[in-house]
Amino acid sequence: MSDHDLRSLIEAADRAITEENFDALMEFYADDATLVVRPGQTATGKTQIRKAFEAIAAHFKNRITVRQGRMQVIEGGDTALVVMETILEIPQEDDPVVRRATYVFRRSAAGGWLCVVDNSYGTALLDV
Amino acid sequence: MSDHDLRSLIEAADRAITEENFDALMEFYADDATLVVRPGQTATGKTQIRKAFEAIAAHFKNRITVRQGRMQVIEGGDTALVVMETILEIPQEDDPVVRRATYVFRRSAAGGWLCVVDNSYGTALLDV
Repeated sequence: MSDHDLRSLIEAADRAITEENFDALMEFYADDATLVVRPGQTATGKTQIRKAFEAIAAHFKNRITVRQGRMQVIEGGDTALVVMETILEIPQEDDPVVRRATYVFRRSAAGGWLCVVDNSYGTALLDV
Repeated sequence: MSDHDLRSLIEAADRAITEENFDALMEFYADDATLVVRPGQTATGKTQIRKAFEAIAAHFKNRITVRQGRMQVIEGGDTALVVMETILEIPQEDDPVVRRATYVFRRSAAGGWLCVVDNSYGTALLDV
């Protein structure tokens, strides 16, 4: 349950976010994936998810960077639950924001992983 | 993202745990599901999962009860990520143990939900 091939995939997605390469970023998602934009607000499907990332980039004045810390992966069936520290560096904040994220990936027909649920808030969703 | 038909399913599974009806309990799991028995130890497949529940029941002298608190469900693709308060009442403890669990369910071909990842430790897996 320690390191996993999903780490390099997630780190590549982080680079796409930091570089605002949204075409590349959308390749990591299943067509019917859901992103938790913030507690109480979700985006489903690549069109909505892309718009949400564009809005987030604009909100943070195109200077947000994302990286990952410790991770645990639990595979069951053709899915994987990823529990992971997500470290956000945001221009307005002195210290990085560290979240404990939960991601769900599904193995595609071609054998690769696609993200189906992207919830960077983890169990903090229950604090709403 | 508030209440969901998965709540009644999870509550039925809780009753099966409390009643130690492991035949009924196994009906909630996909054949290739994974249970986090404790951080660092998983059980995959119904045979292993059933043995783990039998051992847990014996460890707690057949007096453990499980119930659920607040929940959030994020559906993406044919999967659902459930973030949920799990309240364990254990004979040796004065106060109930409250965990923030993460469960992944997959929609079966018949249209129902089956649990593929059962991680009652949630993001606390990162504390190991």
